[in-house]
Amino acid sequence: MLNFDKDRFIRIQSGAVAIAEEVRPLIRDLLGKGIERLYFMGTGGVQLLTLPAVDLIRQASNFPVDACYPAQVVLDPPAGLDDKALVVIPSLSGTTREGVELLKFLNERGVTTLSLTGHAETPLAREASYTYTNFAEDDTSSESFYLQTLVIALALLDEIGAISDYEAVLAELKIMPELLAAAKESYEPEAAKLAEAIKDEPYHIFTAAGSAWPEAHYYGMCILEEMQWIRTRPVHAADFFHGTLELVEPGVSVFLLKGEDVLRPLGERAERFAHRYTDKVRVLDAAGVALPGISPRVRALVSPAVLATLLQRVSAHLEVLRDHPLTTRRYYKRVEY
Amino acid sequence: MLNFDKDRFIRIQSGAVAIAEEVRPLIRDLLGKGIERLYFMGTGGVQLLTLPAVDLIRQASNFPVDACYPAQVVLDPPAGLDDKALVVIPSLSGTTREGVELLKFLNERGVTTLSLTGHAETPLAREASYTYTNFAEDDTSSESFYLQTLVIALALLDEIGAISDYEAVLAELKIMPELLAAAKESYEPEAAKLAEAIKDEPYHIFTAAGSAWPEAHYYGMCILEEMQWIRTRPVHAADFFHGTLELVEPGVSVFLLKGEDVLRPLGERAERFAHRYTDKVRVLDAAGVALPGISPRVRALVSPAVLATLLQRVSAHLEVLRDHPLTTRRYYKRVEY
Repeated sequence: MLNFDKDRFIRIQSGAVAIAEEVRPLIRDLLGKGIERLYFMGTGGVQLLTLPAVDLIRQASNFPVDACYPAQVVLDPPAGLDDKALVVIPSLSGTTREGVELLKFLNERGVTTLSLTGHAETPLAREASYTYTNFAEDDTSSESFYLQTLVIALALLDEIGAISDYEAVLAELKIMPELLAAAKESYEPEAAKLAEAIKDEPYHIFTAAGSAWPEAHYYGMCILEEMQWIRTRPVHAADFFHGTLELVEPGVSVFLLKGEDVLRPLGERAERFAHRYTDKVRVLDAAGVALPGISPRVRALVSPAVLATLLQRVSAHLEVLRDHPLTTRRYYKRVEY
Repeated sequence: MLNFDKDRFIRIQSGAVAIAEEVRPLIRDLLGKGIERLYFMGTGGVQLLTLPAVDLIRQASNFPVDACYPAQVVLDPPAGLDDKALVVIPSLSGTTREGVELLKFLNERGVTTLSLTGHAETPLAREASYTYTNFAEDDTSSESFYLQTLVIALALLDEIGAISDYEAVLAELKIMPELLAAAKESYEPEAAKLAEAIKDEPYHIFTAAGSAWPEAHYYGMCILEEMQWIRTRPVHAADFFHGTLELVEPGVSVFLLKGEDVLRPLGERAERFAHRYTDKVRVLDAAGVALPGISPRVRALVSPAVLATLLQRVSAHLEVLRDHPLTTRRYYKRVEY
């Protein structure tokens, strides 16, 4: 495969699942110490990667969980941000400006924090109450953060008695890194074709529902906009029918991600509509991926990671076909603002 | 003013504030009956109009409050959706398909509902546990829903002892309808100029932070996309710096809404950035509007309604200048999907 190191990939994703060994006792300990609320506070795209975990907790329990913008929290914190709160802060670099400011703010208030980074010797890793370091880079971090936050959500739900299949789910998650690598290999010819088909497209409507929606939002914002300077309109499949649909006409690209959770029909509704009114409908479907040994229950949980792993192959071809490396930026971390 | 009936406008917005008379005792009654959680479940743009109320409750209290997509709830409800939940369902028409399906679903589960509609003889008004009807149309519904949901949030916060200035805030809100009408009049020449400046613009990045963000999202999605078929990219001012900023270059329109809450600096950061890299920066600032008799506290609360009321004037000119009536649709409520 073009620019792909399989062993490195499997090592990184296995590292993500392996945080379960420490997360489980940590969550138990923190609940015992009186933690009553959980927040996820990532900055930019990485926050989107935590949203399937947030939704999972909300669907399975009444444990208070929320997702906030760090840049907003330091100016106007939610009332629940006190000594009964645990804040998870994901940041691949461990140096994200808004995250560093947030952690300082939270430390001053005595809020318990858990950072998830790719590098140990960074402010976010060093100064959080608890931290896990799992090295990754842009090409591997999406699956890593989906898996880490999924493990955190599952550990919490098991500890509070909201699920009863934690061990079984975790056993399946442990084989996912190999399966994700195999999924990339199987998808490679299609990824090359899709990249060729969209390389000159100036604008895409990205849509999805359920746990696939954060991935659609992420791919539009963080890959195509940030790394390829292509315009996108990420819109939830439910909202699609209340505004954005009016933009669809022949020649307009509608890019749909389909997951395997129970919200799949919402994406399919957008798919049917798009096929009627434009010739450019691109569909990426987690259900088309062979995952031997993975139950329907776990397939639904890992849909966003599966979609991310396929899309990374599209990106790998896009940067070559467009002669636009994924690392090229006009402004981000290049100019001060 | 072009296509504007001042008396009708004031009547509608006064009707929105007036629901306080009934909301206050209703909230007290429902809390007494064991309601422990509040959800806002609007479909499409109207849901965005409830988000400032959701944020207000979260910043001021630990009362559980959440916003959900109705289309998702009927397939995968949050765990808290039981007899301890109150669900607010705003729908101007009272007939929104997803809302009607949601209400049926909630009624079957015995969940308490409060619908906010513009028409009494509709399924959402008739079949909810409680309902308020305040007639409005597309040109007046944004302010109406912002005000109604603000009143609901304030009543709740007062009942649970999280605020102590309910009466004072409400007294100021009662004079807002007149002030909003006056704001439209003062802004009219600028609205005409802004509409002229953007009438041929094919794409805008819409951004804002805090309570102005839902309005930026709403105007992009529901007015420019749905009613004018103009492409937009609504992006929160915090996310703007983590992807979308790379699209900014000379000739790209960045449309910024500024509110008066404490999150205003986040919008100003995007504003400074945009001015450096594109010649097309459009800024709409609630702080520029004269609101005699309104305290800084209440100005911050009503920023999204102020911005909506100014933007309606831009829309009124846009539809004429572009010869594209705001009511024209290709698909919405015209074809089955």
